[in-house]
This record gives sequence, structure tokens and C-alpha cells, in this order.
Amino acid sequence: MPYQRIATEEAFATPELFALYRQMLTNKTIQDPGFLSLWGFYLSSPSARATQIIERLQDLGERRIGDMDSTSVAMHILSLTSPGVQVFDAATAVAFAKSSNDQLAEAVRKHPARFVGLAAVAPQNPPEAAKELERGVRTLGLKGAIINSHTLGEYLDDPRFWDIFAAAEALDVPVYLHPNSPSAGLIQPLLQRGLDGAIYGFGVDTGMHLLSIITSGVFDRFPKLKVIVGHLGEALPFWLFRLDYMHRATVNSKRYAVLKPLQRKISDYMRENVYVTSSGMAWAPAIQFCQQVLGAERVMYAMDYPYQFEASEVTEMDAVGTDLDRRKFYEVNARAVFKL
Amino acid sequence: MPYQRIATEEAFATPELFALYRQMLTNKTIQDPGFLSLWGFYLSSPSARATQIIERLQDLGERRIGDMDSTSVAMHILSLTSPGVQVFDAATAVAFAKSSNDQLAEAVRKHPARFVGLAAVAPQNPPEAAKELERGVRTLGLKGAIINSHTLGEYLDDPRFWDIFAAAEALDVPVYLHPNSPSAGLIQPLLQRGLDGAIYGFGVDTGMHLLSIITSGVFDRFPKLKVIVGHLGEALPFWLFRLDYMHRATVNSKRYAVLKPLQRKISDYMRENVYVTSSGMAWAPAIQFCQQVLGAERVMYAMDYPYQFEASEVTEMDAVGTDLDRRKFYEVNARAVFKL
Repeated sequence: MPYQRIATEEAFATPELFALYRQMLTNKTIQDPGFLSLWGFYLSSPSARATQIIERLQDLGERRIGDMDSTSVAMHILSLTSPGVQVFDAATAVAFAKSSNDQLAEAVRKHPARFVGLAAVAPQNPPEAAKELERGVRTLGLKGAIINSHTLGEYLDDPRFWDIFAAAEALDVPVYLHPNSPSAGLIQPLLQRGLDGAIYGFGVDTGMHLLSIITSGVFDRFPKLKVIVGHLGEALPFWLFRLDYMHRATVNSKRYAVLKPLQRKISDYMRENVYVTSSGMAWAPAIQFCQQVLGAERVMYAMDYPYQFEASEVTEMDAVGTDLDRRKFYEVNARAVFKL
Repeated sequence: MPYQRIATEEAFATPELFALYRQMLTNKTIQDPGFLSLWGFYLSSPSARATQIIERLQDLGERRIGDMDSTSVAMHILSLTSPGVQVFDAATAVAFAKSSNDQLAEAVRKHPARFVGLAAVAPQNPPEAAKELERGVRTLGLKGAIINSHTLGEYLDDPRFWDIFAAAEALDVPVYLHPNSPSAGLIQPLLQRGLDGAIYGFGVDTGMHLLSIITSGVFDRFPKLKVIVGHLGEALPFWLFRLDYMHRATVNSKRYAVLKPLQRKISDYMRENVYVTSSGMAWAPAIQFCQQVLGAERVMYAMDYPYQFEASEVTEMDAVGTDLDRRKFYEVNARAVFKL
């Protein structure tokens, strides 16, 4: 094979994380409806899907490597599963991020040819999150940050979180914006219909989140910041033309005080500051569409292990595009973005 | 030119509609945050965008035809602008739908070569909506129904609305599912960021609406029903693979009582019961992607006049695809679906 497959959005969990999630569910100390829907399901369902995922998430050793070998995946870019520490009080979140990053770094040390890690951070305390990202990169050898969309309804377009972006830009590492269940203000009609999860709600929340990061001016303030988004960009590549047109029309009409002019078009930020991965979207037409409209350098492979662990999906791109496009997709882009 | 351009999602308004909207805004007799955001803007903004749109919406005569001529558009499939009558009490909505349909039919009678109409209906009273659709088609010569997404937070996946689908199927006419501002349970984080409108919120609400129509089993119950969706399917074509995968995974895991097995895959309904139009998406890559994944028979031209009246956008497809694809896109598919 002329390339190694580097899978860029692969999840793990620590037993301590699940213990605390279970405790919060049992003691009803969390009201976030998306958390209750997502982890209320995975931590109690007897379904094969839930039990397999809970088991596999907690393995950072032989079982995971066996799964990788059996599906010809060379490397996992690992991140703490969503919503990670972003549902805890600030002090707990800061402590759990550190402990989780230490465990992740240990797994990477044991399997340096197979695992790469992204640092969990606690947006609840932005200066501590920036410090932990720096520690993760400089001391632990991690290659970027993972943030699981909103933090109990708060989004990164709020400048109070921008210490995290400043740190990522200064360290020259990417921020992976991973989905979370939609926030309380977005979820109700989705939840009532069983559509709040990966089928649709994840994309609504994370797509809005990425768009709001752009429209808030984050990339004007941090022009070298790199943000990675899964699920082929949460459909924003499909909307690219409309985003440009309607952003310009809306700004020009002065409809909202909050929507200010930007230095560049939304599609420019999507092509110059954003990378997308194919997690959950193992489908050549959509992958090729993104390569066409964003550039072949912006689209990376991801499996979404263990949430979508399907051997049949791994080779989806093997027969399409040029050799060079496939190499970029499976390996070259990831090596460049994560500096492997 | 080897085809006529039939534009399939073109809006109009009656002066009476705007008078009632203004009265509701002034008297604060409506709380729906999406209505307040959308029509609070258009009916009070001094911007060129708002004033031009308000003027053009109310013209069903020479000015509109002049605009069509100046942009080489042969025919408008006309529908009452969003949210139409769907914000009124049931009795008012039923009366306004009739009066609006009468005025639309009169305009079509005056300009039969240029205008085709879709019937406004009041989902607030489903049996009356079904009757008005029948009157619109059989007596007035209208060619289908327009429904502007949710009706004050209620969506058509609720079987209490299915009289409307039964009537459309029996009459063999399509239902055009047009966007509305997101419902109260979906809008808050979008509204706070100025993203509730056409830039993103419309697609969130209408995409969820179409998906919920599919997952509720509407097309199993009404297998010959045709639904048309603008903005190239509100991104559902992009999500097609993930929708199939996650619907199957979620149903199999029994996560939600409300999410039941369907007779076919979501992508099957998208390819066999749904048509998409290019309103607001005058962008060849996305149009061609939809032709590729849904079939060239399922994708139709729309301008979104007067909300997106851009001469430069009209010819977007003229240089791409085969002659036959372009004919289907601009003319053949619309003639088939609307039976022109």
C-alpha cells in the first residue's frame, strides 16, 4: 500500500471518567438534556452497540491495536470521548483533563508507532485550559487539543474562551472541534424525535459552533489558528456558497449588531484555517466533494472508532481520486497538520 | 437556448398578509422568536435588501415579469412567502389561505405562460388544509401545496397533520416544504449569534423537518407522496450516508421508543419521494453533487426570487454537465413534477 492510514478522530475513555458520569447520572447532579440522552443511553443500554463501545473506548492497548491491525489502520489520533471533561465543575474539569492527558501520554509512550494524542482541556477555566494545552504539547508530547463543542451551552465564539485559541496558535497545534449533543437551547425538537445524536443533532450543534467561531472573528484575531472538524466539516462545505452570500447580505443589511464584517469570506476561512476529517462519512461522493471545494490538502481520514468501527468502510477511498489525493487523504495531510 | 428556465421556489406576498404581520408586530400578539426576528427585520429595516424585497414580493405583474425577462427566467412557480398563514389562529389562517390562493390563481390566469401557483394551506386545521389543497388544484388550477416548515413549533411528522399528505397523494401533487425561521425550541443559540436566518438556521429547521417526516414513516404510509425541498435538500443529500448508518444503528439499539424501523433506507426515500431545488444554492459543485447522489431527475432549478435576485447566478449550470442534465435541471424535471 502506498500510504499508511492515519485515523484522526478516534476516541478513548478512562474508567474514572465513566465512574464520574455514572455518579452524575445516578445522583441527578447534571441537567444537560444532551448529556442525559447520550450517556444515559450508552452507560445503561444492554444493546450490542452500547456495550461494545463502552468496552472498546476503555482499551488503549492490545485490543485496540488488534482492531487497528484487522482493518489496516496504522495510527490512531486519540482524544478523550465527548463531552470529555466539559460537563464538570471547573475544578473537577481541570483535574480530570490533567489526569486523562497523563494516561493518554503513557499509552502513546507504550505504542509510539500506533498512537498519537490530543490534549483534553477544560474550557470552564480558559487560562488553565491554555496552560494544560501547553503542558500537553511541550511536556507530554501531545499534538493538539480536543474540544467537544459546547461546554454546558457555552460556545467558543465567546472571547472569554480565546486564551485557548491564543495558546493553540502560539504552540502551532490544531484544535479539534468534536461534536457534542446539542445544547439545551437547541436540542428539544431534536430530542423529541430521537434525532439529537449522531444522526443529525451532532452536526447541527457542531456546524453552528464552527460557523459562529468564524463569524465571531476568531480567525481574524488568530490568523494562523488551525481548527479540525469531523464528519466532513459538519456540512458547512455543502453550504459554502450560501454562507458567503447570506453572510454578506445579512452584514450589509445591518440586521444584527452581533454580526460584524470579517476580513475575508467564510469560504476563505474554511479553506485556509479549517481541516475536515471523514469520521462517520465513509462515502466517496461526499469526500470527493469536500476535496473539490476545500482542496485535497484539507480533507483527512478518520474512522470514528469505536463508534463506527466498520471494516467495510476503511477502503472507501482506495479506488477513487488520484494516487496523490489518496496519499494526502490517508496520510500526508495528517502528518502535516499534527506534525508527525 | 435548448431549455426554458422554470424557477420553482419563487415568493410573493399579498398586501393583506403584510398588513396583518405589521399589526401582530405592533400589537405584540405573537411571541414566536423566529417570526419576530425575520419579519421584525424585513418590515422595518431601511436597508436596500429589505425594502427591495418587500416591494418585489407584492408584485405579481409587470415588474416581476420584467425581472424574469432580464434574467432569462421563463416561468415562476409561485408560493406565498414564509411563514405564510402559519402564524395565525386557525380560523384566520384558513381564511387567509383561501384569499391568497384566489389572488394567486388570478395572477396565473392573467399570465398563464409565465406563472404557476402552489396553494397555501393552514396546517392549523388539517381537514380544512386538505380541502383547500383540493380546491386549489381542482378549481383554481394550482399545482401543489406550499408549507413553510413548522407551524408555531409543530412539525408535519405529527400524524394529526397527515390529512394534508393524504390529499396531496390522492391529488398526485407535490408538497413544497419551504424553510421558516427555527422554532422556539431550536432558535436561541442561533438567534443570539445572528445565525437564525437563511445563513444557517433555515437549513437546520427545514433539514430536521424533512428528516423527521421520513423517520416518522410518512412515506411508508403515503408511498406515492412527493415532497420538494429547496436549498438542495437542506444538506440532507450531503448527510445521506451518515443518515442511513446512524438511523440503522440507533433503531437497532432501541435507544428511542419514537424511532421505529422503516420499510426502506432514508436514502431510498430521498431518492424516490423527495425532489430538491437549487434555491439559494447557485453553485455548480453542490448542484452536481446532488445530481450524482440523488439522480439528475431529482434536482430542479430555483432562484429564490426576490430574496436572492442575482442575474449572475442564473447561468451557473449553463457550462457544466451534459445537455440532457441541464435540460432536466432547468425544465424537464419541473414539467414532470408540477405536470406543466
